[in-house]
Amino acid sequence: MSESFCYRSLPARATIESAGALLDKVILVVGACGAHGRSVALAAARAGAIVVLAGRRVPALETLYDELKALGPEPAIYPINLEGAHPEDFHALGSSLKENLNGLDGLVFAAGRLHGLSSLDHTDPEEWLRTWHVQVNAPFLLLRGCRQAMTVNSTSVMYLDDPDRVQRALWGAYGVAQGAAQALVRVAGDESGSRELKVAGLVCAPTAGPLMQRAYPARAMSEFTAAEVFAPACVWLLAGNAVSGQVYDARPWAAN
Amino acid sequence: MSESFCYRSLPARATIESAGALLDKVILVVGACGAHGRSVALAAARAGAIVVLAGRRVPALETLYDELKALGPEPAIYPINLEGAHPEDFHALGSSLKENLNGLDGLVFAAGRLHGLSSLDHTDPEEWLRTWHVQVNAPFLLLRGCRQAMTVNSTSVMYLDDPDRVQRALWGAYGVAQGAAQALVRVAGDESGSRELKVAGLVCAPTAGPLMQRAYPARAMSEFTAAEVFAPACVWLLAGNAVSGQVYDARPWAAN
Repeated sequence: MSESFCYRSLPARATIESAGALLDKVILVVGACGAHGRSVALAAARAGAIVVLAGRRVPALETLYDELKALGPEPAIYPINLEGAHPEDFHALGSSLKENLNGLDGLVFAAGRLHGLSSLDHTDPEEWLRTWHVQVNAPFLLLRGCRQAMTVNSTSVMYLDDPDRVQRALWGAYGVAQGAAQALVRVAGDESGSRELKVAGLVCAPTAGPLMQRAYPARAMSEFTAAEVFAPACVWLLAGNAVSGQVYDARPWAAN
Repeated sequence: MSESFCYRSLPARATIESAGALLDKVILVVGACGAHGRSVALAAARAGAIVVLAGRRVPALETLYDELKALGPEPAIYPINLEGAHPEDFHALGSSLKENLNGLDGLVFAAGRLHGLSSLDHTDPEEWLRTWHVQVNAPFLLLRGCRQAMTVNSTSVMYLDDPDRVQRALWGAYGVAQGAAQALVRVAGDESGSRELKVAGLVCAPTAGPLMQRAYPARAMSEFTAAEVFAPACVWLLAGNAVSGQVYDARPWAAN
């Protein structure tokens, strides 16, 4: 047996110091109302960042905005629906960041789409394509559209689900798209490394939230790890510690 | 560092005996005019299979048809353009195999699409989507559409490109789609294993042919391995030796 790619280890969670790590950095969080998006937005604000919250549910973004305002610099909201977004929409986002915030120091892709578990034979092709669009086309177009706004030494982090768990029966488009997302980190990370625009991946253990609720409707969310546990890893990567093109393994940070 | 998935080793090339291994089995080869498709079609015919040649270039399919006819049972041709194919087209293919050939014993997905090497920033979104459609949507729809025709103990094999080489800078949609294709093998293979409809992947070293010519226009194709070298591995998997959901590593078979 020969092995495929290796993941990088993270430092022990207790040794990571986030205070001031992202002082005055502009960090875009896409999928800001999901479990990971919300927790990393809060952690980035606590670390001093100007957080731009992007997502489709505006009332939820507004609630999060208020929470962030109490913790750190004035955040911003950018409503976007990844399912329907066109290439031009991502360029408009990049232009807006450049004009209004003088550029982008970090990008977090924390959006996910899981319709529920079903076999490939019972997967509706349209459902398959929608998942692709959110999980694979969107981060590609986002990296492309935001490139113009990215400052030297910027870091993009893609949250990834545990491939050992989701590249399995019944995970359908979501599982397959996770394989693509990891490959996107490798390709994009290898391209941008030389220009100091890093791209890294962060693999987490199953996280409590709506996505896992749809995957495991009969299980209590308390069985899963809270997204807050993994957020400091993302802040650590955004703070300049990522090696471009690498995927970092936060699974050992899970409580159980 | 923790590792990701492992690949399975193949037996030594010299120990594989293909003669009669696929006697009277119906084997569909999709992408039959590419380097791998052509070589596996010839190898399957020599092993006794009734080979169905699917691809978009009908004159090339007809030439290959004549070659196969001289080697084994009467083959068949099924013209299909993966770039424009709809879900119904794949169901029509499955129905046709069931009606005209009493079912399908093996399926080989050997189609690939590489426009040329370019950075993600310079990748046209439409070009990106076309590559996805051929490399990811097509095998998903193909497995789904052909399920009705598959006999018990059928095996589907997906040819995969070396991830260590193509999940790199400038490989764009092709490289990212390879990550998805590998994940599709895992997901589909895990689902169909219990029903004896196996799905396996076959990773090859860089192979001489039009695809590598587009990737490396300045290099002589003689530097790459001939597709014929890897074809016996595919025949061996089709002959009942695959473990569903596993990816087999044919890279050590490369001459150099």
